Formats: sequence, C-alpha cells, structure tokens
Amino acid sequence: MSLQIKIEKTKFPKPKPNQDNLGFGQYFTDHMFIMNYTEGKGWHDPRIVPYGPIPFEPSTMVFHYGQAVFEGLKAYKTTDGRVLLFRPRKNMERINISNDRLCIPPVDPDFCVEALKTLVNIDKDWIPEAEGTSLYIRPFIIATDPYLGVRNSKTYMFMIILSPSGAYYPGGINPVKIYVEPRYVRAVRGGTGYAKTPGNYAASLKAQDEAHNEGYVQVLWLDGVEKKYVEEVGSMNVFFKINGEVITPALEGSILPGITRASTIDLLNHWGVKVTERRLSIQELYEASENGTLEEAFGTGTAAVISPIGELSWEGKKMIINNGKIGELSQKIYDTITGIQNGRLKDEFGWTLEVK
Amino acid sequence: MSLQIKIEKTKFPKPKPNQDNLGFGQYFTDHMFIMNYTEGKGWHDPRIVPYGPIPFEPSTMVFHYGQAVFEGLKAYKTTDGRVLLFRPRKNMERINISNDRLCIPPVDPDFCVEALKTLVNIDKDWIPEAEGTSLYIRPFIIATDPYLGVRNSKTYMFMIILSPSGAYYPGGINPVKIYVEPRYVRAVRGGTGYAKTPGNYAASLKAQDEAHNEGYVQVLWLDGVEKKYVEEVGSMNVFFKINGEVITPALEGSILPGITRASTIDLLNHWGVKVTERRLSIQELYEASENGTLEEAFGTGTAAVISPIGELSWEGKKMIINNGKIGELSQKIYDTITGIQNGRLKDEFGWTLEVK
Repeated sequence: MSLQIKIEKTKFPKPKPNQDNLGFGQYFTDHMFIMNYTEGKGWHDPRIVPYGPIPFEPSTMVFHYGQAVFEGLKAYKTTDGRVLLFRPRKNMERINISNDRLCIPPVDPDFCVEALKTLVNIDKDWIPEAEGTSLYIRPFIIATDPYLGVRNSKTYMFMIILSPSGAYYPGGINPVKIYVEPRYVRAVRGGTGYAKTPGNYAASLKAQDEAHNEGYVQVLWLDGVEKKYVEEVGSMNVFFKINGEVITPALEGSILPGITRASTIDLLNHWGVKVTERRLSIQELYEASENGTLEEAFGTGTAAVISPIGELSWEGKKMIINNGKIGELSQKIYDTITGIQNGRLKDEFGWTLEVK
Repeated sequence: MSLQIKIEKTKFPKPKPNQDNLGFGQYFTDHMFIMNYTEGKGWHDPRIVPYGPIPFEPSTMVFHYGQAVFEGLKAYKTTDGRVLLFRPRKNMERINISNDRLCIPPVDPDFCVEALKTLVNIDKDWIPEAEGTSLYIRPFIIATDPYLGVRNSKTYMFMIILSPSGAYYPGGINPVKIYVEPRYVRAVRGGTGYAKTPGNYAASLKAQDEAHNEGYVQVLWLDGVEKKYVEEVGSMNVFFKINGEVITPALEGSILPGITRASTIDLLNHWGVKVTERRLSIQELYEASENGTLEEAFGTGTAAVISPIGELSWEGKKMIINNGKIGELSQKIYDTITGIQNGRLKDEFGWTLEVK
C-alpha cells in the first residue's frame, strides 16, 4: 500500500484533561485516523481528521453481528522528551491474525504503523508525562455494511483513536485476589479466543461481575473443554513461577498471543530463567501452592504490563501466593519492560520505535 | 414501565422498494423506535423518529467489547388486510435472557411489544403483500458508553428497525447441502451460545465461508467440548426425524432457544408426533442414515421458518436425506406455521397478535 494520508487538523483544539486524574480510556485527543475498505477497491482514503462522532446507520453490521477486531498499545514520553512506541508492528501483525479469524480483509502492517506514528506525532502534546502515565492507542476495525443478512461485510472502517491514560498503579503495585471461574467460559479451541475481537470481551463480563460481587478483582479462566487447564486471567495472559521455573499456558487457539506475554518470555530467556509454555492444570497449581513451590503468579497485558496475583480462590480453597506480596521476578519484569517502554532503560531488544 | 412513546413522523417519506426484488435486510422503513438507558435513571425517552443515521463516538463500547443483544421477528399482511405479528412477546422475553448473560439491564417485555406494535402500525404500508414476503423486525440493544475500559456500560440504546423482505424461497423450497463442521466451534457450555448476541454470529462467519468454498450452503455445528453432538445448523435450530420420532438437541446452554423451534415442538405434540429433546451424536445420525431410518432433517428459524436439509457431509461421508427432497412432515410444519403467520390458517394456539 503506497497510500497518502490526508491530514485535516482541528480548528478547535480541546483543553487537555487534568493530568492527575486521567483514569483509563475516557479522554480522547484532538484527532483520529480513519481508512475505509470497499470490496473490489481495497483499503482506501486514509485520513487524519478531528476526533468526533461519526454517523452510522442503525443497520450497520457491527451492531448486529459483531464482525470487528481491535488492538491496544501505548506511547510514552521519555524524560528527555522523545516519544516511544512499544513493538507497534506486533500489534499490526496480530490484527491481521484476528482479521483472518473474523473474515475481515487484511491491512498492510507497515502502512498502519506509519499511520499510527503520524497520528501520535500530531497529538504528541497529549501524551502525559508523569511516572506511569501514557497515551493509550486503540486501532480497531468494524464491519459497516447497512445490512441484516448474516455474512461477511463488504465494507469496513479501520480507525485509530488515542486516549491519555493515568498510571495503572497510582498507589504502587498491589497484588490482587482472583477467583477461579468454575462455570463461565471465555473461549474454546475452534472459537475466537486467540483473536482480539469484541465478542470475547462481551462473553467475559458476566463472570467478572460475579467475581466482583464476591470480593475478587478478576477471574482466572479455565479451558472450555475440560474446565481443568489455566488459560487467562481477566483479559491478561498469566504466568506462574513454580520451583524456580516460570510456566505459562501454551497458545493452543483459545488464548490471546499477548505482546507483553511474548516480551516476558523473551526477557526470561535472556536472563537464563527457565520458562515453559505448556498446559497447566488448576490441580497442579493447587498442589504447588500446598507444597510451597508456587512462588509467584502474575498477569501480563498492555494496560497493567504486570499484574501480580496475591490470592487465588478455587472451589472454596485459597492459595496465598508469596504472602500476598509482589514477587521478586515479577517486579524485575515490570521494572524492565516499563523501563524500556519509557526510555529509562537501554532497549537491548529493539522493542521501541521512536516517533519523530 | 408506564412510559409515553413520543412520535415524530418523517416529513420526507421514502419511495417504497420494488416488491419483486426485496431480498433480506437491505431496505428500511421510514421510522425507527429508540429508547435510552442511563444508570440510575433506567430506560427512558422512548420515541419513534424518522429512520436514519445516528452519530456515535468512535469510543462507543459496542464497537470495542461487543456488549449487545438482538432479536428478530416478522410482521405479515393477511389477504384481508390485517397485520399479524408472530409470538412477539417471546422475543421480548428472550431478549431479557440475552440481556442477563451480557450484563445489560432488562427491558419491560410488555412495553417493548407495545413499542413494536406502535412502530409497525406507523409503517404498515411498508409491509409487502406477495406470497412469502414479510416485514422483518429487528429489535436490538447496544452499549453506548464512550469508554475503553472492559466493564459493563452504564448507558445503552434499545432500537427497533423494520425491513420489508422478500420470500425466503422465491423458487419453492429446495433442501440444502450442509457441511458438518469439524474444526470451528460456534459456542460452548459456559459461553454465550444461548444468548442472541453479536459475538456468536461473528464467530460463525469463518466456517460459513469455508463451507461455501466447498460448495455447501451452511454448516452443522457440533458441540465445543466433545465435537460429537449436533447443536445448530447455520444460525438455525435443527431437527431430525429418525424412524418416526423427531429429535432436536436439548437446550443445555450452547444452543439458542428458538421461537420457531418451540412452535415446531408444540405443533408436533399437538399432532401426536413423538418429539424428543436430547443429545444426538453425529455418529448416531450417520448410523440412522446408513440403516435407512433417517427420514427427514430441517433447520428452524425466523428467516426461513423451515429449511430442509437434503445432504450432510461428515468427514468425507455423505448422508443423503429423503433423496434430497423436502420431507412430508417438514412440509406440513412449514405450511402450518407460515399459514398461521400470514393468517390463512386458523390460529388455534394464540400465537399471532394483530396490530391495530
């Protein structure tokens, strides 16, 4: 794709939100990127325009049949004023994996990274600077045919929107209590679990609600077939350190191939820490907890980077992990990834891309 | 809910589409029903307004996390000019079952039926009159918070849109060839299979695509756990007549509780035909086909009412059903349900509701 991005800047820049109270995903910058797809014509008309509402027919397919995919990544402002993206091409490669599962035409990953850089550069004054803050970036694609038959849409919109977001851990990292979900299922092999598509998130809300009501922050999902093997925690990948070895569920079709997950595995390999991708049953985890070899547990994802687990509740049995405190290795992974992301640590892996 | 529906009629009525070429779900009438939900305030501002596009923030939750549900039903014009709805309260009861699974606040079924009747009455001139045609009715609810965190939305829109639609079988009913899907899974127990939510349909597109490419019209879904038991055909419930007995998969959480399914069961009971809801394995079906006891097979759904299956392809083995012709019982069910729907047969069951 050698398309030219047309840029229309806003005549009415918005006031920036209070940097101390950004939260997550509730403020949006002055501009957005849009590109359309039409069958027979391909992706066309890439443009950056003022951020704002878009008229949609009530019959727009995404409202009815959920044919859509998305991505999430962050831009950081370094102390010396540079703007860094973390592995953006990985997101644009993954969106094509999701596209394939959802029957959405692929995008050109390089062009989309270019679009992303151009957009972030235009709105770079929106990137917050305080420790732990970032500009959250949401690329997404939706089916736009005004049609109610169940089939692939013939038109789509690819958009990128930007949201200045606060620190995920404003009060420091606190390990969370997690409920092992016995009843609801997030995904199953043969389904859409490995794709980043709205339906997976819609399906997860009910269990999250019920866990909240029981005093837990999130759920640990078990596999949909045997309800035996650990899959994800909330909308994050999950890692366990057992007797010195780090174990994370293998990617077998029902688990999202997380970019923070991949980076964590790369780091552990680099450090010479044994890391294994395999099936891990909740029973095995419980036995490790009982015999004292379950040393650390944490989720990985773009929003939190690392989210340590302090307690797991499984069928009324409690597993307290590292006395409810963040583990040494979890902390080291967090410090290293966030250090590379915000430019305080040297990027030995070539993970960051500077926006100029 | 004792809300008053505010009505704003269009000043620019659209020309009606050509009645001979309506297709399905591509034309929409002059008006639509909208009602909003706001946390703390409940459902409010029910209104009928001119049909047209609505502005949505790009951050609107339904685009990202698919928190949405829908329904589908039809209005028919009888030869003596009356307008009939088919079991509309069942749809409004079912939308609340879907709402519960998707963490969407419930609606008042009676009020929604009232809204539906009012809307259909305003646009009744749009109901086509030719044999087999109808006005397709699509109630749906979408999450509308402009927010990117994964949680339940605090605002929603409930809408009803109407689409004059052509006969499903313009050339008479022809049994279709179906591919037994070995790899992809539509739903699993613990998931959202029993809810009418966009994600289920998004997940189904890939298998449908691949079946089309192999020359099949649709797929027969097997259960997500054992990939052994029959679940649905395309987006329809499925029935088999084996040795005089009609069998349909039991509702165990992964199957949509279809209203045409329920009506079919009621009719069979009324006629004294043995009908059983239970698990049915594809192996059992194959054996019945081999020993000549698989007499009929058909899907049931709002769009087609009855869709007879002429051939099933399972792991390279073919099952030809009733020589690829529609079965006697399938035809009788089709004639009876459509006859009641369009007012040509006496409605002994109280299934129709007249719009006055």
